[in-house]
Amino acid sequence: MFAEIITIGDEILIGQVVDTNAAFIAAELNKIGFSIYQISSVQDEKEHILNILGAAQKRAELVIITGGLGPTKDDITKEVLSEFVEDQLVSNSEVEENIKRLFKEFNLNLPLPANLRQAMVPSKATILMNKNGTAPGMWMEKDGVVFIALPGVPYEMKHLLTEEVIPRVAEKFTRPYIYHSTLVTYGLGESAVAERIKEFEENLAKHVKLAYLPSLGKVRLRLSSVGADKESVTAEVDAAMKKLQGLLSDIVVGLEEESSIIERIGKILKSQKMFLSTAESCTGGKIAAEITKFPGASSTFKGGITAYETSLKTKLLGLPKKLIDTYNVVSLEVAEAMAVRSCRVFDSDFAVATTGIAGPDKGEGDDEVGTVCIAVATPKGVVSEKFHFGKGRDRVIEKSVNKAFEMLLKEILKI
Amino acid sequence: MFAEIITIGDEILIGQVVDTNAAFIAAELNKIGFSIYQISSVQDEKEHILNILGAAQKRAELVIITGGLGPTKDDITKEVLSEFVEDQLVSNSEVEENIKRLFKEFNLNLPLPANLRQAMVPSKATILMNKNGTAPGMWMEKDGVVFIALPGVPYEMKHLLTEEVIPRVAEKFTRPYIYHSTLVTYGLGESAVAERIKEFEENLAKHVKLAYLPSLGKVRLRLSSVGADKESVTAEVDAAMKKLQGLLSDIVVGLEEESSIIERIGKILKSQKMFLSTAESCTGGKIAAEITKFPGASSTFKGGITAYETSLKTKLLGLPKKLIDTYNVVSLEVAEAMAVRSCRVFDSDFAVATTGIAGPDKGEGDDEVGTVCIAVATPKGVVSEKFHFGKGRDRVIEKSVNKAFEMLLKEILKI
Repeated sequence: MFAEIITIGDEILIGQVVDTNAAFIAAELNKIGFSIYQISSVQDEKEHILNILGAAQKRAELVIITGGLGPTKDDITKEVLSEFVEDQLVSNSEVEENIKRLFKEFNLNLPLPANLRQAMVPSKATILMNKNGTAPGMWMEKDGVVFIALPGVPYEMKHLLTEEVIPRVAEKFTRPYIYHSTLVTYGLGESAVAERIKEFEENLAKHVKLAYLPSLGKVRLRLSSVGADKESVTAEVDAAMKKLQGLLSDIVVGLEEESSIIERIGKILKSQKMFLSTAESCTGGKIAAEITKFPGASSTFKGGITAYETSLKTKLLGLPKKLIDTYNVVSLEVAEAMAVRSCRVFDSDFAVATTGIAGPDKGEGDDEVGTVCIAVATPKGVVSEKFHFGKGRDRVIEKSVNKAFEMLLKEILKI
Repeated sequence: MFAEIITIGDEILIGQVVDTNAAFIAAELNKIGFSIYQISSVQDEKEHILNILGAAQKRAELVIITGGLGPTKDDITKEVLSEFVEDQLVSNSEVEENIKRLFKEFNLNLPLPANLRQAMVPSKATILMNKNGTAPGMWMEKDGVVFIALPGVPYEMKHLLTEEVIPRVAEKFTRPYIYHSTLVTYGLGESAVAERIKEFEENLAKHVKLAYLPSLGKVRLRLSSVGADKESVTAEVDAAMKKLQGLLSDIVVGLEEESSIIERIGKILKSQKMFLSTAESCTGGKIAAEITKFPGASSTFKGGITAYETSLKTKLLGLPKKLIDTYNVVSLEVAEAMAVRSCRVFDSDFAVATTGIAGPDKGEGDDEVGTVCIAVATPKGVVSEKFHFGKGRDRVIEKSVNKAFEMLLKEILKI
């Protein structure tokens, strides 16, 4: 059961925006049993869009198209799709009402002619009403293949996909069951992990696929299988995963599906009625921002201080100036003091602190770019570690954030 | 002059990772005159990779492939490419040396056989040495079309692309000049902007393309042209852009190429030797994290406080409890007090503060999810505004962050 995704827009082809829509759609379709054969991004250009639609039709039973449905002249997806399915654009009164309602809701002037043109849709298309925007979703069919066009604005696309597209697609198609389970490991390289589980990999059932997903400081291992029967597919992958976890128990963080490391930390803290705070230097607030991305963060996260300037570590966290002068601002001692004092200032049980040199400049001290000290204060004491994360500002920050959560989880699990 | 980008990996097709590599490669190739005809993502599957390579060969003169070069069994790109260009894999001693060097540098044990297999490359390929990883880049040719394979790890890919690929490609191909200029506007919808510049759009030279890029709270307008002569292409687009800026002067933030809004704020503050700080509630540290993404942030950013729990606004920022009780924690009064006190605590000239309800739960007060108050304290006083950003936690946070920088820039420009 194959699907394809086509994302349309010059902005993708010139690299001005990253195509995040495709990954979201792929994940949602995968959940209901579709394998994505290909994702293609093409320009706002008629011949090219027609070509890719024709190619996708030959390979897939379902084609999801996003982008190019806006009110302005550069958006041509609707016209081209209408031509492709040999249909004509007609005005749809329900879509027009929706556009007028949206303009009223947002206290805008009356819709412009360009907005009302968005109510023009292929006559045979089933309309998927877009509550959050003026461009409607459209369901069309050609020679048994389903083509669904969605707006490119991620928020609008996501709502339409999950609320309108997925239920309808699930009803129309008889689908197999696809199951993935991903294990997150920290601290060992891809090939070293592969060496450790060589025998396991060789003895893995043929229809269970193992994939390695290395990224900064962690390797994720994904087991996947597909089959008609949900129970047997799930049971087989879960049994293999259990074996894998046993083989790698010393470097395992947990299963990715269960929760991200941050959600896992949040869940444990909440169950223990314990609180967290931060004191960040080189990570500049990113640890706090990652924590507060999650709904319900307020029930475990007290807050944080970004003490970017060295003197502020003294002023806000009450670090003795002598400590900084003696040990250097990038030191285990300073990181530990930051963490401990963050607990005190925020009245929290755990605190994570970072101090380091994200680069590209070396900063005040003698340390190389990429040197980062991370500390975690706990009700039992404080632990810290010094890292050399190499060059690349973004990379140093990201590695530091990942490592901070890893160290934090380790300590929290000791409660 | 067309190029194509092929990204390989099941993780992309199941939506487990967002393909950020394609956008980076597209932008870099575009800068040197290549139009990207298509971006395709395909699975780690031999027939499929062979098909897409064949299709790309017919459409483009340059094909960049990323992913599938790892040391583990699920990575097959190298074998398939070698078959495609009718070559054979041979061991390359320079690549082997590089692998051994990397293992030494990172204090790892000796390379495993799996790592040394990464030194196997197509015999006719030109090697692009990967200083940052064990998978080499490879330059191959078939019937006049250049195929370049790069590792999928973004950091390694980026270095190889900018340091090895771009200079070689630039030398090999005679390329036209492509020029984009993008204007960032805030506060008006896509179709309202289109209506304002209708005449301008109609009179635009045919070879200059105008594109609208709407996103949360802002619309970007891109003018693009391509031609043999750099000077005339640039002059024509710049002249049109100047007109466009004039037509939209009241909603213009600036040109995107110049710098992001954060870089622009940083530049002005630095030139004035002035400093910035934050006091965040609902944005949870994201404003600080966005500021510190940029190298040199330390020369203008003092730091910030994330006071997530209400009581901490009193404790850390010294906000009178009475103020919060009287006006409600999500109020202009509290936002203003947070900003003013952030200036005091951090000894900064400007401070931006947020307080609001990111959702999905309503929180302590009476306000709806999506209600956010933002304040900017300046040497001259403090300004604030209340917003209703709708639902969706991520969306509320992102809109708040964007709006905060917009308000901050507006005030900074008044200095």
